[in-house]
Formats: sequence, structure tokens, C-alpha cells
Amino acid sequence: MNQSYNSVLLDTAVAELAKLPGIGHKTALRLALHLLRKEPETAMALGNAIIEMRKGVSYCPVCHNISEGGLCGICGDSHRDTRTVCVVENVKDVITIERTHEHHGLYHVLGGLISPLDGIAPSDLEIESLVSRVASGSVDEVILALSPTMEGDTTNFYIYRKLSDLPVKITVLARGVSIGNELEYTDELTLGRSILNRTPFVEND
Amino acid sequence: MNQSYNSVLLDTAVAELAKLPGIGHKTALRLALHLLRKEPETAMALGNAIIEMRKGVSYCPVCHNISEGGLCGICGDSHRDTRTVCVVENVKDVITIERTHEHHGLYHVLGGLISPLDGIAPSDLEIESLVSRVASGSVDEVILALSPTMEGDTTNFYIYRKLSDLPVKITVLARGVSIGNELEYTDELTLGRSILNRTPFVEND
Repeated sequence: MNQSYNSVLLDTAVAELAKLPGIGHKTALRLALHLLRKEPETAMALGNAIIEMRKGVSYCPVCHNISEGGLCGICGDSHRDTRTVCVVENVKDVITIERTHEHHGLYHVLGGLISPLDGIAPSDLEIESLVSRVASGSVDEVILALSPTMEGDTTNFYIYRKLSDLPVKITVLARGVSIGNELEYTDELTLGRSILNRTPFVEND
Repeated sequence: MNQSYNSVLLDTAVAELAKLPGIGHKTALRLALHLLRKEPETAMALGNAIIEMRKGVSYCPVCHNISEGGLCGICGDSHRDTRTVCVVENVKDVITIERTHEHHGLYHVLGGLISPLDGIAPSDLEIESLVSRVASGSVDEVILALSPTMEGDTTNFYIYRKLSDLPVKITVLARGVSIGNELEYTDELTLGRSILNRTPFVEND
């Protein structure tokens, strides 16, 4: 698109902002002009925070949650129950479950859900590393905390089959969460209850 | 708010993003995680574009439009009609009017509208600099292109009074029915004005 706001710098900032999901060209321009109106420190702080975050944040080698190098804050916390591992789709779900204060164990972030339609195969996800983690004998219980959608159920079943020969208890979130809803929009009370009432995984549930 | 996403860097980036207008905490987190998922170049480009824009973009000393130091692209364009000045509320309105390709003169950006309720007085706006510009004798026509709101009308009237002793033609945007709008949804004031200010019918207008 030919913007020509008489400033290449503004054009560039608008173009970069418009690459963010859910931010169109008009919103990007509004945000850029807002930053120009505010004192310079606001824009500097935002720009630097984005750069420093991207430079400094990496992924935990054990659970694949975000960390600032090495183990993440949860894996490195000696007060957590290391023998219970909660399997989640992404980092946002770790945050969502942490907010309920009902899970005291560790996590395993898959990085997505199996979805043949979107071309996401089991090998694209952190499933093999979960199997290794369980096979090492350090885990008593795996809590499957994936969204109650078709992709979530498929992934649950795949992981269940992969772990079924290993001496580990496999549980799944209680169906207190409304089926068809995304995990991140579930209220904390319901989500907390569904962690407390987790049930053994049964085929053809 | 106590976020604790196990990364101070993420917390900081989310907090800075959430300061942008119309971006709440949840959206800020979604944007930050999006930047973490994408290749590092995306976040670097965004962060640097914001910083460089804020460092490099300043305001034109003549019309107060954005520029990259010195005169803005419009004031510095020798093909523009320097004797016609269009008065607008803000930089975004310059862009909006430029897109119509119907104004070939210069601009004067007020930086807001007179609004006693919001505590915006004439002295907070670039009105004195407009009067000086006109008083210098370099302007034949001032086009008042402010929003047809109470604040816009108040500002129009204030500027009109300030310029009334000077030898300059003062015009205002035509008020009328919007092209493409149904007549029955046009408010009575606008419709009444458009009847009073009716223009000769021209074929292929």
C-alpha cells in the first residue's frame, strides 16, 4: 500500500504495527500518532521492552514454558510437586492455569494441538519430549489440560496411547469447562474446579 | 496488577503494550506472545521502528504537520499552492484530506479543538501561529476543515473572529448529505443545511 505520510519513519512504524494480529492499518496509524503525541520516553520504553523481551526470553528445556535462560520459574521452583505434570497447549494456558492456584505441579507445553486440517502433526509438537520425561520415571501423574475441542480430544487420545505402556496415572480436566469453548476464555472458578475434579482418562470418553 | 508470567521481560513488554490506547491487558499479552512465537527479526523491526520514529519525527515549524526535521513534505513541495491554507484539527486529518487529492494548498494543524469541558483553551492550540501566518500577508484563503461538532464550530468561530480584520478569504467545508448515504437516515440539521446551500445540477459531477 502506498501510504506516504510524508515521513518514511512513520510509514515504517505503521507498517510494522499493522503486522500485529488484530491490528489493521487504521489502528496502526492511530497507535503511531499516539506515540508521537506522548513524551519520547513512552515510545522508547515500548520499543525497548519489545526488543529486550525478544532477546531475553527463551524456552525452558524441560517444559517448554517461557524462561529467561535455563529452567523456567516453575521448573526451578523447589516448592512445586515435580511428580505431577500438567500438559497444556501453549504458554498462555500455563498463565491461565497458574491464576487458578489449583495446580502445584509442573507443566509440559506442547506448542499446539494435533490438527490435520492445519497441517499440525504430532511430530510438530513437544510430545516425544513428554514421553521421554515420563519414561525417565520422574512423573507419577500426567494431567491433560487441553481445550475441549476436537483438536484437543485428538491430542489427548494420541498422548494417552503414547503413554499407556508406562507406569503413570493419566487424568484429564473435569468436563466442567463448556465443550466447544477455548480454554483461555473459561472463568477461573470453573477452571480451578475442573483441575480439582480431574478424572482418569478413559477411551471413548 | 501482579502478573508474574515467570519473566520480568515479558511482564514489562505486556505492561508497555497495554499503555497503548484501546489495547487492554489480554490483548497486550496476546501481542507479546505472538512476537515471541515469530522469528526475532519481527520483534526487532517493530521495536526499532517505534524508537526510530519517535527519535526522527518532529513537527513542521510552519504548519505543525509531522516532518523529519525542518519543513514537512507538503510545505517543502514547490508545486503546492502556498496561498491557500487548510486548517485541520490534527495530523490524521492532513492524511485524510490528502487522500481526496482535492486540496492543493498547504495546511495548518491546530493540535486539537477548543473544548472548555476538556480544559482545552485557544492558547493550547496553534491558533496564534495561524494568525501570524495570515498577518504576514502570504495567505489568500483559509479553509476551515474542522469536524462539524460543537467543538469544531466553536473553534471555527474563534478563528473567524481572530482573522476577521485581516485581508483573507475564510471558507468552511460544505455541510450536506454524505455521498452514498440514504436520505432518510440523514439528520434534519444537515439535510436542512444542504437544502439551503443547494448547488446547480451538473451532469457527470
